[in-house]
Amino acid sequence: MYKLYGSPASRAARVMWALEEIGAPYEIVAAKPHSDALKAVNPLGKVPALLDGETAVFDSTAILLHLSDKHGMLTFPVGSPERSRLMSVVCFLIDDFEQPLWTAAKHSFILPEALRAKEAILPACHHDFRNALASLGALLGDGPFLMGETFTIADIIAGHLGGWAKATGFPEPEGAVADYMARVRARPGWQAVAKARAAAA
Amino acid sequence: MYKLYGSPASRAARVMWALEEIGAPYEIVAAKPHSDALKAVNPLGKVPALLDGETAVFDSTAILLHLSDKHGMLTFPVGSPERSRLMSVVCFLIDDFEQPLWTAAKHSFILPEALRAKEAILPACHHDFRNALASLGALLGDGPFLMGETFTIADIIAGHLGGWAKATGFPEPEGAVADYMARVRARPGWQAVAKARAAAA
Repeated sequence: MYKLYGSPASRAARVMWALEEIGAPYEIVAAKPHSDALKAVNPLGKVPALLDGETAVFDSTAILLHLSDKHGMLTFPVGSPERSRLMSVVCFLIDDFEQPLWTAAKHSFILPEALRAKEAILPACHHDFRNALASLGALLGDGPFLMGETFTIADIIAGHLGGWAKATGFPEPEGAVADYMARVRARPGWQAVAKARAAAA
Repeated sequence: MYKLYGSPASRAARVMWALEEIGAPYEIVAAKPHSDALKAVNPLGKVPALLDGETAVFDSTAILLHLSDKHGMLTFPVGSPERSRLMSVVCFLIDDFEQPLWTAAKHSFILPEALRAKEAILPACHHDFRNALASLGALLGDGPFLMGETFTIADIIAGHLGGWAKATGFPEPEGAVADYMARVRARPGWQAVAKARAAAA
């Protein structure tokens, strides 16, 4: 059984969502950041991390790639044009769609207090996020998903970030992107994770 | 022949480095961001983008994955533990090692002037980068490369970022990480790119 390190409130939620979609059983291991137990799986001491037998994987995106390739679900085979497009979209999500949210979070509660500059950086974060919403709309096209008819790890990352943005007061999507967010977050896979998050809160 | 969109001064340099290591011929296409020519390859209108026959790939990391998988070089096969580790390291580099550099660049010359807050965010960027240097050292271990004896796309990303950090006055690596940066940047592949960058400057 997969051992997932990280709480449902962290980016481990993306991994849980993927495992729900795949239908693979998993166990959540409560391990504090930088604890010895976590460092045995991820030398950097961060969550999420996954233990799959003897193989340790860390960073939520790397874990999504590991699981989707292993199960042949939520992705496309390496060497196909669809795979290269999927990776382009995933990299856009990490570089442009997540970055403003993560920068704002760092300056809200992660950095040492003396280094935080939330008021100074929030306008730029909102600006970048508005641009990223427009890019997401361009990539989505007629949908229903980012890769057309196939629900993939890109939709898991985007759907998770959509909830994060809403919860932290970032600009809201409109039109087709708003419909898309509602569509992916209504899936039973995410609903199961949302239930676990509510129970843990 | 591969068509690479983006100048050697952009993150296209990473793609050039990979193509030099692989020994594959390529042509650099001068295309302005958001031009119609570029949008035909990357709907987001950003460089770098790659055209491989009919397949369009964008974002430097996605392009490195495309090329390394296609040529079976600078990577490991999907399904191997080494591949999952490589992706963990690549995601660390994008999330933690590049992010402070990119945030500082945005606030230096990319964001609209009214939104820039360089003085306010630079201490946090340097703090995050110092932590990322320590993490890089932990991942490097005894080296010589991030994945041990095999030079991979992770070393291309790290080596490129090392030069970017130095050029913009970020904290300098020491000890094993400094030796590592010198080792990867001395490779003929990077030296060829550096020559093209100097010629274009």
